[in-house]
Amino acid sequence: MSEQNHTSSGQENSLNKQSPPTRRGVINMMSAGAGLILGAQVTCSRESGLKLGESLSPALAETNPEQANKVSNPRVKLDLNVNDFIIHGERPLTYEAKRHTIGTSLITHEKHLYIPNNLPMPDRAITDQPDEWLLDVKGVKNSRTISIAGFKTLGLHTVTAVLQCSGNGRTFYTHSPSGSQWATGAAGCVVWSGIKLIDVVKYLGGLKGEPKYVTGTGGDPLPNKVEPAAVVVERSIPIEKGLKDAMLAWEMNGDAISLEHGGPLRLIVPGYFGCNQIKYIKRLAFTAEQTQSKIQKAGYRFRPIGEKGSPHYPSMWSMPVKSWLTNEDQMFGDQQVLRGVAMGGERSVERVEVSVNGGKSWKNASLVGPDLGRFAWRLFQITVNFPQGKHKLMSRAYDDQGKVQAKKRQENERGYGHSGWLDHALDIEVYPKEMRGNTIIKSVDFITKPNTKHKEKLKLSTLAQRGKEVYLKETMPECGICHALEDAQSKGAIGPKLDKLKPSLKQIKNAVSKGLGAMPPQKQLNEQQLNALAQYIFEVTK
Amino acid sequence: MSEQNHTSSGQENSLNKQSPPTRRGVINMMSAGAGLILGAQVTCSRESGLKLGESLSPALAETNPEQANKVSNPRVKLDLNVNDFIIHGERPLTYEAKRHTIGTSLITHEKHLYIPNNLPMPDRAITDQPDEWLLDVKGVKNSRTISIAGFKTLGLHTVTAVLQCSGNGRTFYTHSPSGSQWATGAAGCVVWSGIKLIDVVKYLGGLKGEPKYVTGTGGDPLPNKVEPAAVVVERSIPIEKGLKDAMLAWEMNGDAISLEHGGPLRLIVPGYFGCNQIKYIKRLAFTAEQTQSKIQKAGYRFRPIGEKGSPHYPSMWSMPVKSWLTNEDQMFGDQQVLRGVAMGGERSVERVEVSVNGGKSWKNASLVGPDLGRFAWRLFQITVNFPQGKHKLMSRAYDDQGKVQAKKRQENERGYGHSGWLDHALDIEVYPKEMRGNTIIKSVDFITKPNTKHKEKLKLSTLAQRGKEVYLKETMPECGICHALEDAQSKGAIGPKLDKLKPSLKQIKNAVSKGLGAMPPQKQLNEQQLNALAQYIFEVTK
Repeated sequence: MSEQNHTSSGQENSLNKQSPPTRRGVINMMSAGAGLILGAQVTCSRESGLKLGESLSPALAETNPEQANKVSNPRVKLDLNVNDFIIHGERPLTYEAKRHTIGTSLITHEKHLYIPNNLPMPDRAITDQPDEWLLDVKGVKNSRTISIAGFKTLGLHTVTAVLQCSGNGRTFYTHSPSGSQWATGAAGCVVWSGIKLIDVVKYLGGLKGEPKYVTGTGGDPLPNKVEPAAVVVERSIPIEKGLKDAMLAWEMNGDAISLEHGGPLRLIVPGYFGCNQIKYIKRLAFTAEQTQSKIQKAGYRFRPIGEKGSPHYPSMWSMPVKSWLTNEDQMFGDQQVLRGVAMGGERSVERVEVSVNGGKSWKNASLVGPDLGRFAWRLFQITVNFPQGKHKLMSRAYDDQGKVQAKKRQENERGYGHSGWLDHALDIEVYPKEMRGNTIIKSVDFITKPNTKHKEKLKLSTLAQRGKEVYLKETMPECGICHALEDAQSKGAIGPKLDKLKPSLKQIKNAVSKGLGAMPPQKQLNEQQLNALAQYIFEVTK
Repeated sequence: MSEQNHTSSGQENSLNKQSPPTRRGVINMMSAGAGLILGAQVTCSRESGLKLGESLSPALAETNPEQANKVSNPRVKLDLNVNDFIIHGERPLTYEAKRHTIGTSLITHEKHLYIPNNLPMPDRAITDQPDEWLLDVKGVKNSRTISIAGFKTLGLHTVTAVLQCSGNGRTFYTHSPSGSQWATGAAGCVVWSGIKLIDVVKYLGGLKGEPKYVTGTGGDPLPNKVEPAAVVVERSIPIEKGLKDAMLAWEMNGDAISLEHGGPLRLIVPGYFGCNQIKYIKRLAFTAEQTQSKIQKAGYRFRPIGEKGSPHYPSMWSMPVKSWLTNEDQMFGDQQVLRGVAMGGERSVERVEVSVNGGKSWKNASLVGPDLGRFAWRLFQITVNFPQGKHKLMSRAYDDQGKVQAKKRQENERGYGHSGWLDHALDIEVYPKEMRGNTIIKSVDFITKPNTKHKEKLKLSTLAQRGKEVYLKETMPECGICHALEDAQSKGAIGPKLDKLKPSLKQIKNAVSKGLGAMPPQKQLNEQQLNALAQYIFEVTK
């Protein structure tokens, strides 16, 4: 598209460019509305609308999608709409917000916030009486166990901070890194409320010795028979950061934190990646060394492709400057409000630019709404006139020290920390005016990116069908808690990704019957179960 | 209590004053936690807690109050807990957040936000496809009807603003003003997102003529046979305010606005009282005069006690500076974090003071969390050490022009605009240490204030019992839509309050059979129904 069509921020320009509104224009605008939300065949009632005192027609009421669209997983108690999420896995829960699910209120509603999990969630009963939850505090002069009710008498702190998975953007890497294939939606901006770590430390008489790290341990139930260090959700962060910014939070966006989001108590480290924000935290320790947990020593390390994780690679702590557009990828009509979110990690966002021509030229966007502090993201917008056709749009953010968002991804084994603006471009299609009325709009799923391969559904042998049952229900811990296997929709990240490993029948039987590394032997399985399981894994991965 | 026990802001002071923590202290702290949330007989598990990998005991799981405490009104789709609200009425919905329901996250979760209504809500189906909602815009050069989807292509604005009923605090007046007996909880702070009115006006070619007001009309279904002006939710605000600050909002706290809170589209006038924030807005007009609706001409007027409302009394527009504490009224242990909210109406809050001795002396509180802009409220806190016994606590706020919150209420007929700090005092009782473990804690309801009289339940005659059915189900519109009647739990504010009017049998029969003023005759009632209805109203009000 040409430069003329790209107005700078402020609606005045684009509004004045509009030809005088016509009756036809109004109809188009209304029809466009219907198309935008339905994303399917649109029969538009046009200028009818509702009159005061009238009820909606029964026909409209009957199509009420309210119940049909609810997430049906019985482990989810939040009121989630399946259309708002890309569901990467159900066990453990791994839900990503779609690009356009992020709203325009700066803060992200819990109904629109991504849900990542390394392990199944604890029993929901722990959130019934949140004030009774206990935290062990170690590495202070007076170590002790304190309830949330106790913390509430000691201090109060409130911060707005971006919560973002270190794997957000992983799907844009081309070397197929293992783990959930997050696109843009493993991120949100949340108001957290609780008490700062520094206030806890002061209350408990100060630090004991000279610890260098803050180590938090999650209350995730651990699978039996597995070496705890291999699976425990335990992470360490530098003590300076912990004492300066970190907090224990019991409230999120004005409500007690839900189990899905780490309630009743979550460690919040503003400006750091999500893996450091320990859910259902049970133990807080000020330690001389980083924890020996696998997810600290080897996991969440920014390492070259092909290398194993180890402590000499950088840990996924501080987040880089990043932004992306949050519009839908289909638009109707000339004028559009492009919007997006921009974050500075531990620094404020200074400004944001938008390009509508693939990065050839850039215009400043306007920041919208209040500044919620340097750990929050900013909402930005720019009003643009588009000709019909396809366009590549992107944004890039600058932090308050002038550091600009990177253009390209930084290659690394696990696809962590992607902030490159090029891959985060939004490819849109603008429909011509005459198609706006009742076009069949093909819904495009955002995860349909080049490197996400969806295999054809396999026809399993009878033995393998039986083996799938063993995989899902008869192993302990369930295979899927530690292993990713596409056919079983399991997303465990503790052990090898089976689709990639492609083990032989003999390898499977050996590992399952005798154990291997951290993996315990499945002694409860009989020969028939073992054979079936091996056949299943072999068939779906070969 | 003495001055020494009252520390200034910052936890350092109070923390250092604490004697070295003892084992007993920890037990007390934990027990206190249980008491604070249960508000009933407490059996505390003490230091047991949950160990990693353990599930909660079945006993605890069985006491899960999750389902039992849900609001059961089928017209409410929000996930509300009855313990969080004072329910003033079910039809129309009139829910007040308890004092302590307001959290500490600055923004108020929709689960904790009060719900006021003058009329029953529209059909819920109007929020199924919010983008299709239509608004008529009048008084501009190019009047037209625009859908929410259309507005989304025109602009984007986000603001955080206090939503507060003009009757918030009414229960503290002693002359028994009619209307819902709100205490502190008809208020919340919300992030709204949508488009500014000024951007709509620009798009539609500018204003037509020289209008002086912005008039918004709600989509509330009107009762049949009643003069529309008597019941319609239609309000006018000065045009300067409307063009400077007002907006049309379709998103609240990051989610589409729910029906309970005025979705799909609500007029937001930041800094103004709730009555101006028109729900389900259907018509926006730029007008030369204020609307002739009853709620504009006579209602929401700040008038002397005993006077009728009329246009020469001030309309309930801009809100005054105000603050109040949001703690529970029962506390355990010496140290407490007192917290509250402070708002400046249309101005920023400069500072807040707290008194713990009934207003004899004051200390500065600390403001907590980000400043969300001048229309939002600020969260404040102060850490205080209390001796056991009863204490009267209060706060007072100063706006950025040095204007201080009033001490006393300003008497007025309808009990509007109460911002006096004296009546908003929090009377607390601090329990002695040795009682903290498993005391029976008597729950004190905040509406049990001197002027709220709860009559003994009357024993109705057989005829009156029949009449109650007529009142509730056989009149059209239902009597309760327009009238308040305590026995029927109806809260209509359009017609006279029957408990106060105390009509005779003859008066009732005359009004019902022939109509009176805006009230339509109930011609469908037979003689027996009419007699029963009259007997019922007479018995419960005499």
